[in-house]
Amino acid sequence: MKLSLNTATVRKQWSLAQIIDGCARHGIEGISPWRDQIAAMGLRNAVSSIKQNGLAVTGVCRGGFFTAKDWKEDNRRAIEEAHTLGAQCLVLVVGGLPAGSKDLRGARRQVRDGLAEILPEARKARVPLAIEPLHPMQAAERACINTLEQALDICDELGDGIGVAVDVYHVWWDPKLQSQIKRGGKRVLAYHICDWLVPTRDLLNDRGMMGDGVIDLPLIRSWMQSAGYRGMHEVEIFSAGNWWKRDPDSVLATCKARHRDCT
Amino acid sequence: MKLSLNTATVRKQWSLAQIIDGCARHGIEGISPWRDQIAAMGLRNAVSSIKQNGLAVTGVCRGGFFTAKDWKEDNRRAIEEAHTLGAQCLVLVVGGLPAGSKDLRGARRQVRDGLAEILPEARKARVPLAIEPLHPMQAAERACINTLEQALDICDELGDGIGVAVDVYHVWWDPKLQSQIKRGGKRVLAYHICDWLVPTRDLLNDRGMMGDGVIDLPLIRSWMQSAGYRGMHEVEIFSAGNWWKRDPDSVLATCKARHRDCT
Repeated sequence: MKLSLNTATVRKQWSLAQIIDGCARHGIEGISPWRDQIAAMGLRNAVSSIKQNGLAVTGVCRGGFFTAKDWKEDNRRAIEEAHTLGAQCLVLVVGGLPAGSKDLRGARRQVRDGLAEILPEARKARVPLAIEPLHPMQAAERACINTLEQALDICDELGDGIGVAVDVYHVWWDPKLQSQIKRGGKRVLAYHICDWLVPTRDLLNDRGMMGDGVIDLPLIRSWMQSAGYRGMHEVEIFSAGNWWKRDPDSVLATCKARHRDCT
Repeated sequence: MKLSLNTATVRKQWSLAQIIDGCARHGIEGISPWRDQIAAMGLRNAVSSIKQNGLAVTGVCRGGFFTAKDWKEDNRRAIEEAHTLGAQCLVLVVGGLPAGSKDLRGARRQVRDGLAEILPEARKARVPLAIEPLHPMQAAERACINTLEQALDICDELGDGIGVAVDVYHVWWDPKLQSQIKRGGKRVLAYHICDWLVPTRDLLNDRGMMGDGVIDLPLIRSWMQSAGYRGMHEVEIFSAGNWWKRDPDSVLATCKARHRDCT
């Protein structure tokens, strides 16, 4: 399976231009850029550099945050950017509880309604939307869609043009993971890899490199393959205490080696 | 609803003897002691002091850890102690991955087999076993049963004498929480309360006092009541940075006030 790099993995060390070069240098064949980095480089420059280096755009990070005030305009821009980049999907981090709210069901309704409203524009732009269920520990602050089952229930309701991103970090613990990946089938639009460290010291920025944690990555990959997933494997590591402090070339070399040996 | 105190809430400040006195002084009518504290006080002393003060024993913490080596003998002793204390249930934290293992399904099988093996002894002692599903962020280290649905599936399989403990901290995020509490019905043996802080700074010891976080406690209580739960509300707060540092009398007074006003 081919490797793609989610640019968050070396975002503290490199600009998007440097990351694109780094991918080419290390034989990483895909990229999934974050929008703040795209903006900093300029969309046209990003498109042209990514094309020149022959990288697939396995995703754009991110749309979503449907519980925020400016969600509609922001998601429209995200869809346009994903379209311009020829991205395989727009990854959605759907948003958590509005500030001061305890109404989780209400937030989930808002997310569902926002998805329904933005979906026709995504279809028109031919940008598949990928709901990324986030780990339950991030339900309040980042995403109130927290299991693959919950995400696929929404996909069932909304129809074509929307699917899911499976990030092992968020879903590895789920007793229904295998059955829901199977259920997802062609609607599984992206596969993100990293590892769950023991102990984990931070709820957001303490992800591990593949092989350094407890996730059975070959097993989950086998489930993805059985479900028909043929896309790239996208490595995405938020790591304030470790990988974000290292030489980015050695990070990319490690990603390549671990992808080969540990997944 | 009556309030019970899980002794972890002031375990850094007080011995079990002091906690029992504190409950009586603050009009807290139940207690759920941890076994290390029971051992330190002596089982007979604990039983007699709890009886003298008229406290209900809403649980004993804890049995479980079926993936550890000495699990069987340890659970037998826990059942005996719960029986001697006249506890309403023995709370089970079932254990996570064995050291060095990535086999989550295997760990879950071990837990199921351990439960099946110990259950006849619990039935004989008339000690209901309460599986406590733990938050998915604790799947690797503490408990590989992580949703109410998963716990109830095991209860379905094993029959009488086993149920669940619903701790809002672990399950508040679950999109199926309402339906699974309803499904649980009479098998819901305990109800633990605290709050989820935003931000949460530690995966284990940063729980909030009721009212300080984002959990809609009155809503979940209404689901518990609709499902027929008539037991006490047990406050259980692990809080290294805050409540464990405070004067324990003020902690208990706050528990009482917040239980009245925020749940």
